[in-house]
Amino acid sequence: MSYRRHFAAVLGACLLALPALAATGKQATTPSASQLLAASQPAEWRTPDPRNLLVMQLSTGRVLIELAPDFTPQHVANIRTLAHEHYYDGLAIVRVQDNFVTQWDDPAGDDGGDKAKLRSLGTAHVTLAPEFTRPFDAKLPFTRLPDGDMYAPEVGFTAGFPVARNRAARQEWLTHCYGMVGVGRDNPPDSGNGSALYAVIGQAPRRLDRNLAVVGRVIEGMPLLSGLPRGHGPLGFYATPAHRTVIESVRLAADLPPAQRPAVQVLRTDSPTFAALIEAQRNRHDAFYTVPAGHIDLCSIDIPARETTAANP
Amino acid sequence: MSYRRHFAAVLGACLLALPALAATGKQATTPSASQLLAASQPAEWRTPDPRNLLVMQLSTGRVLIELAPDFTPQHVANIRTLAHEHYYDGLAIVRVQDNFVTQWDDPAGDDGGDKAKLRSLGTAHVTLAPEFTRPFDAKLPFTRLPDGDMYAPEVGFTAGFPVARNRAARQEWLTHCYGMVGVGRDNPPDSGNGSALYAVIGQAPRRLDRNLAVVGRVIEGMPLLSGLPRGHGPLGFYATPAHRTVIESVRLAADLPPAQRPAVQVLRTDSPTFAALIEAQRNRHDAFYTVPAGHIDLCSIDIPARETTAANP
Repeated sequence: MSYRRHFAAVLGACLLALPALAATGKQATTPSASQLLAASQPAEWRTPDPRNLLVMQLSTGRVLIELAPDFTPQHVANIRTLAHEHYYDGLAIVRVQDNFVTQWDDPAGDDGGDKAKLRSLGTAHVTLAPEFTRPFDAKLPFTRLPDGDMYAPEVGFTAGFPVARNRAARQEWLTHCYGMVGVGRDNPPDSGNGSALYAVIGQAPRRLDRNLAVVGRVIEGMPLLSGLPRGHGPLGFYATPAHRTVIESVRLAADLPPAQRPAVQVLRTDSPTFAALIEAQRNRHDAFYTVPAGHIDLCSIDIPARETTAANP
Repeated sequence: MSYRRHFAAVLGACLLALPALAATGKQATTPSASQLLAASQPAEWRTPDPRNLLVMQLSTGRVLIELAPDFTPQHVANIRTLAHEHYYDGLAIVRVQDNFVTQWDDPAGDDGGDKAKLRSLGTAHVTLAPEFTRPFDAKLPFTRLPDGDMYAPEVGFTAGFPVARNRAARQEWLTHCYGMVGVGRDNPPDSGNGSALYAVIGQAPRRLDRNLAVVGRVIEGMPLLSGLPRGHGPLGFYATPAHRTVIESVRLAADLPPAQRPAVQVLRTDSPTFAALIEAQRNRHDAFYTVPAGHIDLCSIDIPARETTAANP
């Protein structure tokens, strides 16, 4: 009665999962994610620019965030400054709200804290003009998804990020999919500065799109942000400071000596292998699936990352 | 610099969150979820049938699952039998795969375990005919969502559960939204029996719809399933047995003395308050939101539950 392993193998959402059972004996099966990735070409992978790669060291492990300056250049610049000046070191994950976000910031800003103790932002800006959308640019690469979207006229991927576009409004923007990172703010649209960041850990809260500055995507370490006990305070804030996870440091990879930079690659979202992965998810044909979905939504698509190794130089 | 609290208050995805900031001073603001719930009428709430309420006691707390016999009657009946015969007592959460599912079953079935030690299913069936969809029935209550869906012609809610319908195919089915509970199975469609169950803890894996028997929804205790460390084994299985969470017991509420049954109510999904909550989420107008989404997807809608109290009899 081994069905629990089979269930696992076939249901796997992770694109880097075990070889699927599909390959054994049936005709016209969908190639598995691992088969597709194993057949990928070196040129289909890219190494993130170290100026766009945040290395967040938690007490529990490492989280890598790729920044998206094409969409939120001023916010990304401010975050680079904050990281360069070691603003984040010693801050904490203060909030984990179930099916919504994990947030990290200066704990002194939470209720009950002494706001006079808030850390200085150094040379970073305290306010920033909103970058909730950017002007539509037909020259940006865009791999459009075939199945549409409930929130925008077009969705797809631009250079590794999920993107929505509205040509009529001449706007495009990063979407609040699982693992995307945004900038917390107060009610004034210019009140975000990057000192408080959040990552999406549940069903994509697309209602936030165009209302917040989305600055990047977690490309490694999501389980360290999503697999935390939920806060018992209002809105998932930790009522007990001891429950917070300490941020030991946040560095821009470009500020690290080259030998210390993370060795990581991300599958190009304009590559044939990425297209094949999407199609394999849209229409599963294997020993387990009785009905392929025929569709896929933007936020259900994983973007594979892998370690740079001798085999993957 | 209190924006982190404001950010939290306004972004709150939880419908039982703090009063939103929206109420302060601006015209034409959307009522907050808490305002809408506070104004709800007693008749808008229902108490789940104790024959449809599973009480799962973990070492970390209580999880309540409402069963959906209208959609998967034979699977629900088998789960009732398993609970009645205390099959689940002493099993464990064996798998937590990030952005996908938390699964519980007999650990003896995992790789490395001695399958001869698998617990007997007692009088429950070992195989069950698939109940991945059910025949379309226009007489079932259905609160249709206005914004459509990427995976089915119609979606909405039937008696507290998210549902997709295809009139042309004369089918309807429960959807794999956050918090929904399904029955693990092997490749043969009839190989599921309810001894291995999973709950969705990430972006809704709608590709599973119509391929598995969905038997219910977690109405209390999701953080106990979602806020667990992710497994480091393949597909999120715990490589180390000590990381498993023990299931102390699973009981059908109907098998408990009335005084020991959970005192819980669920907002009716055909109620005016539920409709108002949906509309408030579709079009946020408050001090924070600059652009209302104008749409909402099925799996982004929470279904509120509350404790039965003297004030909520």
